[in-house]
Amino acid sequence: MFDNTKRTELSELGEFGLIEHLASRIELEQPSSIKGIGDDAAVIDPQGLHQVVTTDLLLEGVHFDLGYVPLKHLGYKAIVVNLSDVYAMNATPRQVTVALGLSNRFPLEAVEELYEGMLLACTKYGVDLVGGDTSSSNSGLVISITAIGAAPKEEVVYRNGAREHDLLVVSGDLGGAYMGLQVLEREKAVFKETGAQPDLVGHDYILERQLKPEARRDIVELLKKLDVRPTSMIDISDGLASDAMHIARASGLGVTIHDDKLPIDPETYRTARGFDLDPSTCALNGGEDYELLFTCALTDHEKIKANPNLTVIGHMTEEGAGYRLVDGQGGLHPLRAQGWDAFLSKD
Amino acid sequence: MFDNTKRTELSELGEFGLIEHLASRIELEQPSSIKGIGDDAAVIDPQGLHQVVTTDLLLEGVHFDLGYVPLKHLGYKAIVVNLSDVYAMNATPRQVTVALGLSNRFPLEAVEELYEGMLLACTKYGVDLVGGDTSSSNSGLVISITAIGAAPKEEVVYRNGAREHDLLVVSGDLGGAYMGLQVLEREKAVFKETGAQPDLVGHDYILERQLKPEARRDIVELLKKLDVRPTSMIDISDGLASDAMHIARASGLGVTIHDDKLPIDPETYRTARGFDLDPSTCALNGGEDYELLFTCALTDHEKIKANPNLTVIGHMTEEGAGYRLVDGQGGLHPLRAQGWDAFLSKD
Repeated sequence: MFDNTKRTELSELGEFGLIEHLASRIELEQPSSIKGIGDDAAVIDPQGLHQVVTTDLLLEGVHFDLGYVPLKHLGYKAIVVNLSDVYAMNATPRQVTVALGLSNRFPLEAVEELYEGMLLACTKYGVDLVGGDTSSSNSGLVISITAIGAAPKEEVVYRNGAREHDLLVVSGDLGGAYMGLQVLEREKAVFKETGAQPDLVGHDYILERQLKPEARRDIVELLKKLDVRPTSMIDISDGLASDAMHIARASGLGVTIHDDKLPIDPETYRTARGFDLDPSTCALNGGEDYELLFTCALTDHEKIKANPNLTVIGHMTEEGAGYRLVDGQGGLHPLRAQGWDAFLSKD
Repeated sequence: MFDNTKRTELSELGEFGLIEHLASRIELEQPSSIKGIGDDAAVIDPQGLHQVVTTDLLLEGVHFDLGYVPLKHLGYKAIVVNLSDVYAMNATPRQVTVALGLSNRFPLEAVEELYEGMLLACTKYGVDLVGGDTSSSNSGLVISITAIGAAPKEEVVYRNGAREHDLLVVSGDLGGAYMGLQVLEREKAVFKETGAQPDLVGHDYILERQLKPEARRDIVELLKKLDVRPTSMIDISDGLASDAMHIARASGLGVTIHDDKLPIDPETYRTARGFDLDPSTCALNGGEDYELLFTCALTDHEKIKANPNLTVIGHMTEEGAGYRLVDGQGGLHPLRAQGWDAFLSKD
């Protein structure tokens, strides 16, 4: 995973040495970032905008497995999933803070790889790493990231703004990250049993969806260009079904999703079939897609219907209609959230 | 530590259930808190002020020992140490986010105790808990807190503003938290060996310094009232010597501290002697005092010299003079930072 020929022990540097070493690679690019690492706190100039703040905790063995996740990818993904939450508020991410708990088994070179992935994501999305904390960890790697974004007050989009008859729209395609994880888990099991090298051929797309997801900044920009103002928005981290129900519940509505409208990439579809899994179930409940799910007025339909990045998958209903899935024959089924639950996935 | 007669498993609630349960106890009080828990991100109205942001990671077995730290105190302290960083910027904390990694061995009732301590600190300091993340943890308890504060741009105080001849001033007294920890560690060792109940009599003050520290909001307010504008400021988390050197280094200066000026509480002094420790060394390097250390102009001396909350302990010098400790006989010694280092304190 990292070049073991060079190994610098973290204890040689100490906490301040490590922070200094890592911080030396950081340059603040955002005019709103007044002060970064090196004081009691970072200082941000909001420039008249509202600020949005989101925090995520990633724990080794719960959220990631260093057996098949390269540290650089892990760092990249850790940043991206937080930025995704900021875009889901229709805001622009501008700063992140990073707190790391590092096990002794990591040499400095490993931490540098992790950091490199984080900084790559920061550069790509125009975000400054302005603060953080590093500590030793007696157990596994701990990553806690807080992302801060900005938006004019009137542009912030919440989960609770959906209205009856609004269209339910999703960006990109679904279920890929979940199938990528299945492939990685299978190859890990095979390796453990037989020592055979992982066979990942033909799974490029879904592996990238799992290991190096992107946040849909382009969709937020696209919606502005199309003059579509979402009435509610959420990013798909737990799974489409679960996240659609979050919007419905917050807005005091019901929601209906059409099974045959779900956007599924051919590679996801094929791999799901190969695992004897229902592709629709993967798309509905797989999670970690980091696509944007939003509602908009029926009158916006013309503006989005031909766009290859957006798929209308259903609509919002009155609350009493509940959460429903319509199958290809028009049959109605209860929509169920089997999304990934951090308290149930420990086995 | 918590009432074991009632035990609700976290897996019964699931992640969303837990978040909902905990969030139901939270009311937003700050006009600047527009949206709290329940969306992709919290939303803050900066109201024309600069924002300061600080993050801390607290790991079981590294930063705290649940063998002698009650969960409610731990929650309280976790919030307070972050607010202390905000005050050290001369800003007012207004929001926090909390990310928790929870081991299976915790029932809901334990998490509620932790949360109760956090909310107690939030109420006391006028801060809203606006966001967070909860997850299971395969190892110990993980607490990551981000605090956000606000201040007019011109009032933010950095570490790097000290000037030559400035006074070095500290609030409160030093070394108490460290001695509290020594007492707790000793009683834990005795309990392990003999099963004897801990003898904590006569150590109320230093135990409170360790287990339930306070952030010095009052000092920030006092300085405004006294019309003293600190040229630089830091909170003492690593230890006076280390933190004074942080100010000196950031400001491109040297610093001289007078050993006989160090404010040490009689209980701290007596306990240090009982442990065969030098009280001055405890005050210089103990850490976790969460007092404010600041510099101000010589001309401010009249305003602060009689104040029982403030002690002038030294002054800033030109850089070449280095970091010095003056003993009671006027002898000069190099000031050494032996502060707590998260990467060296694992044994």
